[in-house]
Amino acid sequence: MQVLVVGSVAYDTIETPQQKVERILGGSAIHFSAASSLFVPTRIVAVVGEDFRWDDVALLRERGVDTGGISVEQGKTFYWSGRYHKNMNVRDTLATELNVFERFSPKIPEGFRDSPYLFLANINPSLQLDVLKQVENPVFTALDTMNFWIEGSRSELVSVLKRVDAVIVNDSEAVEFTGESTIPAAAKAITAYGPRFVIIKKGEHGCLLYGDDGYGALPAYVLESVVDPTGAGDSFAGGFIGYIARSERINAQTLRTAAAYGTCAASFCCEDFGINRLIRCTIQQITERFEAYKQLIAL
Amino acid sequence: MQVLVVGSVAYDTIETPQQKVERILGGSAIHFSAASSLFVPTRIVAVVGEDFRWDDVALLRERGVDTGGISVEQGKTFYWSGRYHKNMNVRDTLATELNVFERFSPKIPEGFRDSPYLFLANINPSLQLDVLKQVENPVFTALDTMNFWIEGSRSELVSVLKRVDAVIVNDSEAVEFTGESTIPAAAKAITAYGPRFVIIKKGEHGCLLYGDDGYGALPAYVLESVVDPTGAGDSFAGGFIGYIARSERINAQTLRTAAAYGTCAASFCCEDFGINRLIRCTIQQITERFEAYKQLIAL
Repeated sequence: MQVLVVGSVAYDTIETPQQKVERILGGSAIHFSAASSLFVPTRIVAVVGEDFRWDDVALLRERGVDTGGISVEQGKTFYWSGRYHKNMNVRDTLATELNVFERFSPKIPEGFRDSPYLFLANINPSLQLDVLKQVENPVFTALDTMNFWIEGSRSELVSVLKRVDAVIVNDSEAVEFTGESTIPAAAKAITAYGPRFVIIKKGEHGCLLYGDDGYGALPAYVLESVVDPTGAGDSFAGGFIGYIARSERINAQTLRTAAAYGTCAASFCCEDFGINRLIRCTIQQITERFEAYKQLIAL
Repeated sequence: MQVLVVGSVAYDTIETPQQKVERILGGSAIHFSAASSLFVPTRIVAVVGEDFRWDDVALLRERGVDTGGISVEQGKTFYWSGRYHKNMNVRDTLATELNVFERFSPKIPEGFRDSPYLFLANINPSLQLDVLKQVENPVFTALDTMNFWIEGSRSELVSVLKRVDAVIVNDSEAVEFTGESTIPAAAKAITAYGPRFVIIKKGEHGCLLYGDDGYGALPAYVLESVVDPTGAGDSFAGGFIGYIARSERINAQTLRTAAAYGTCAASFCCEDFGINRLIRCTIQQITERFEAYKQLIAL
């Protein structure tokens, strides 16, 4: 029931109206595994530069994250910097330095190729396809993508969509990719490209699911204050796939519960910078939050 | 268990990417009563001009709406015109002609003063306060407001907030009024002004409740296509208060179910222009939609 995530490891400099943190650990593979490892052992394939401080992933390793697939290349680690507005749903990107991530060519270690659960974080769809070829008969595969690939690598994206079980994307990207005018219509339209399940992330407004049992709608968990929303989407994906891997059932009912756990993981992510809160979270704490979430949405 | 609504009656010209309709019946009191009258007899207090066509409210009257409080003044009926973008959450206002509504001074007819349930739609807070003084010991009162009054009549708004049980406002208005940076914090902050219950409307993203039992979060009903969202917020309020009036219970549990019925009423509103769909809706149809909604949000 191991999960493999292929994505980015980054250093992030994040400014909010309250605080500024410099060069803290981030990236899609980091946020994902901080959540998924609450449920199951998780393997990361990513690339870092010579400036990478291995101590930064010590707590992830203690949680059961196998960082053996993080390769070191000549150069610097992917660096991102952003500033959030008072309304934390709005941010300005101040710097994006891809560095070694620009030449990322994921090679799945021999010992990772049997991973039954696979998450292809937001990378070039050609690389996502290449990863799928290296993994042996996975039980459940999911991918994320972004407007950059939708606009620049559409045919490659369509090819990889044929090969995955689920898509986890932002609302604006789903609308852009399909050309539909509503989010539900976009979710349904994506299934025509191949995936059995579509999960649309709507940030502070939660998520919309579309699958075998039609639509599912889940609001976000309520937080009165948000410290840093960076990585909430990848934390959602980590909680979602981690829960599925732990339950070892792939059906619409399990996916709904998994999306609720993903929602709870994303809420922990927002409570501190980087993975600071999620890495201190326990399975008991996320289960308690899941119970609180059920009360929140109860009629 | 009658509901009284004090608000606007208007003629709306609405353009969507698909279609344009001219001078159809609209306004907050109309949309509200089209929903509330599914549940309980509803009384309207509003003003129209000499151009008003009384046939336009014939179906509402058949549904149990008492239009005896709609007065005719010299001049024309309130007129609004707007154009929706492909993303129907965005619209441009093309014309707002207040006409007789500019001098609206609501006088509650003798026979309406015993109304146990009262909705003060979005009008000048001084007028809302004046209406409250004319109604005898209502069981439950709620108001809506908008940025225009928050900016221009804040002290009057604060005065009327002390006197109502519930506030039903849009997310951006709640944030503007309170100065909070998140919607949940804004909802909670409003209760400090007096209201026991706060309902924040988030359009296609549903609503957030705050009351005796803490927070409640309800996504919107899923619609693959939207014909015309005009009046969805007032339809929500109508379904919400109509359900409460029918159940004759004021507690957190009833309010959650009421918000779900309001959500269903808003979804019917969006399925056609003006009140065309909602006025043909039956109590059985909205109950069926409520059951479908429970499935939509089930974990």
